[in-house]
Amino acid sequence: MSTLIPTRVRNLVAYTPGEQPKVKGLIKLNTNENPYPPSPRVLDAIKAATDDRLRLYPNPAADALREKLARLHGCAVENLIVGNGSDELLALATRAFVDPRRTTLAHRAAATVQYFTPSYSLYPVLAEIHGARPSAVPLEPDFGLPSVKFLKKSRTWEPLAALTFVTTPNAPTGRGYATAQLEALCEYQKGIVVLDEAYVDFAGENALKLALTYPHVIVARTFSKAYSLCFQRVGYAVGHPDLIAALHKVRDSYNVNGLGQIGALATLDDLPYYRQNFKRIIASRERLSHDLAELGFEAGPSSTNFIFARPPRFPAEEWLQKLRDRKILVRWWGQPVVQDFLRITVGTDAEADALLAAVRSILR
Amino acid sequence: MSTLIPTRVRNLVAYTPGEQPKVKGLIKLNTNENPYPPSPRVLDAIKAATDDRLRLYPNPAADALREKLARLHGCAVENLIVGNGSDELLALATRAFVDPRRTTLAHRAAATVQYFTPSYSLYPVLAEIHGARPSAVPLEPDFGLPSVKFLKKSRTWEPLAALTFVTTPNAPTGRGYATAQLEALCEYQKGIVVLDEAYVDFAGENALKLALTYPHVIVARTFSKAYSLCFQRVGYAVGHPDLIAALHKVRDSYNVNGLGQIGALATLDDLPYYRQNFKRIIASRERLSHDLAELGFEAGPSSTNFIFARPPRFPAEEWLQKLRDRKILVRWWGQPVVQDFLRITVGTDAEADALLAAVRSILR
Repeated sequence: MSTLIPTRVRNLVAYTPGEQPKVKGLIKLNTNENPYPPSPRVLDAIKAATDDRLRLYPNPAADALREKLARLHGCAVENLIVGNGSDELLALATRAFVDPRRTTLAHRAAATVQYFTPSYSLYPVLAEIHGARPSAVPLEPDFGLPSVKFLKKSRTWEPLAALTFVTTPNAPTGRGYATAQLEALCEYQKGIVVLDEAYVDFAGENALKLALTYPHVIVARTFSKAYSLCFQRVGYAVGHPDLIAALHKVRDSYNVNGLGQIGALATLDDLPYYRQNFKRIIASRERLSHDLAELGFEAGPSSTNFIFARPPRFPAEEWLQKLRDRKILVRWWGQPVVQDFLRITVGTDAEADALLAAVRSILR
Repeated sequence: MSTLIPTRVRNLVAYTPGEQPKVKGLIKLNTNENPYPPSPRVLDAIKAATDDRLRLYPNPAADALREKLARLHGCAVENLIVGNGSDELLALATRAFVDPRRTTLAHRAAATVQYFTPSYSLYPVLAEIHGARPSAVPLEPDFGLPSVKFLKKSRTWEPLAALTFVTTPNAPTGRGYATAQLEALCEYQKGIVVLDEAYVDFAGENALKLALTYPHVIVARTFSKAYSLCFQRVGYAVGHPDLIAALHKVRDSYNVNGLGQIGALATLDDLPYYRQNFKRIIASRERLSHDLAELGFEAGPSSTNFIFARPPRFPAEEWLQKLRDRKILVRWWGQPVVQDFLRITVGTDAEADALLAAVRSILR
């Protein structure tokens, strides 16, 4: 690669998103998309707005959406920022709150992006892009959150890290964390904590109140997964106005497309439709977990819209290919801690049946 | 602001986008939007795609759009990256090609973002966000591009600057630059040059061939202004595959929303519609320039969809308010070099008539 490009970027290994196949007829259980479409009211609102206004810039700060979210969450507009998907908000947090790495040891904490492993594999990439220092700390062997008591004794965990990301409920493990445990962790941290709640609508509890209580805690949410709006890239973050103002400062002026804003607004007008879908997905998840367990898949309980399971008989990588041969896409990573597992998105019941049939045929 | 936030961000003054008014009935000549709507085929394509697919992630690298752009420009897909508006691409270039500032003098050029003034006021903001060193070099007094001969003698211009932004044709001055002059500048630069062609469809020539000739030159384009698609945030950049690969590495995984990709694809299928609009806007611009000149406004020739003019009798800031009182929005900046000027977007002929009537009433 050209020597015009700084070493930081030349050495960078980009994040690999899950495959978005171009061929049809595949059952797509690999990127945790919602199997149900957006509400008809959302589709109608987007179509109705597809007119002359497309020539105009969208509202730069998604004001109407922030106002509606503020009412939903009982907070102020100043507690909210909307992003081009929650991925953008995680990147903005890295740029706004973390210093690029310098050689002095005194500067180390200010340049640190800390996270547990396994969790969202984007975090180290965001740190490297920014020239910051990624610091991975292992979860417990059963993927539980280490206790503060344990972290205090840890040599690697840093309460002063400029930024700590916690995926909750976690991906790719699917495990939910108790808000009380997250609160204890936040109380221990001196740096900023981002609770990445991309999957929280499929869980039993959420930690939003922490973002409205602690001046150093941010909760990130997305319309992608639970609200079937991946295509339009809308996420948001909640936190202290000082932190939110810093994120606004470093974002692009018009970071959220107009039809995305309109789709998200209409989504909030039809929450019962989505809550019904959450129930269906949770019911499918429980049934699929049960049936996979009967077939020899080992998995902990999931608080998300996917199942993280250790498959029987063949290595997980072989399962990936065997399922793909049967037109079913799931996700697999080659890193040591997770290489024995498959991450399987909970689709419709029909998709679950197809998956179970494929599994049975592989085991036969 | 919270001490949790690095000094770099605490001291940051964010870019101020032009006002997007919430009240209706204003004539909006302040943010260089196209007065004509997108092609009906574009609106139809977006409506037709507003269906179940919104639950899925969009194509991560906008492959179909890059393929169509590659055919249009006679280049390879690897020469192209699509962004969430061209603003995102300018920000990506800053992050990918420039190092954050360090204290050593030897590192100075690697941390420098260089640009002419006046030009797009986003560039210094992008440099400051990244912790890089913004370096502004004045244009000639008539807003012409300084010659390489002149720059060689300049104490401030740096051929080694990691990144040089050139808005061409320029904003807010409206002045076009000859490709031959841009090529001479590119040949002199050892660092990367981004030619920001946001307004190029209203100009007599473009510099795309430089991006396909020189391994250190990138051309940025947008669907916003000429293609009436501000709302959906789609821009692209053309350059050497090494530079483009570096930009891909540092972007978000799904940076361009799906309906934006679909709108841009349909745009490329109906270019004659847009070329007709360019002609109309250029005709309106020439008529408006002529009529404003007769009323005492001083302006150089414009190669864009706006006019940068020094108004008569009252200070420009007063004109801004007097026009606003008459429900016409234009743009004004308080910086010394530009404070005597108004930037007036070329709208429809009816909008030009309304502007001229307001000007006459103010002068009466």
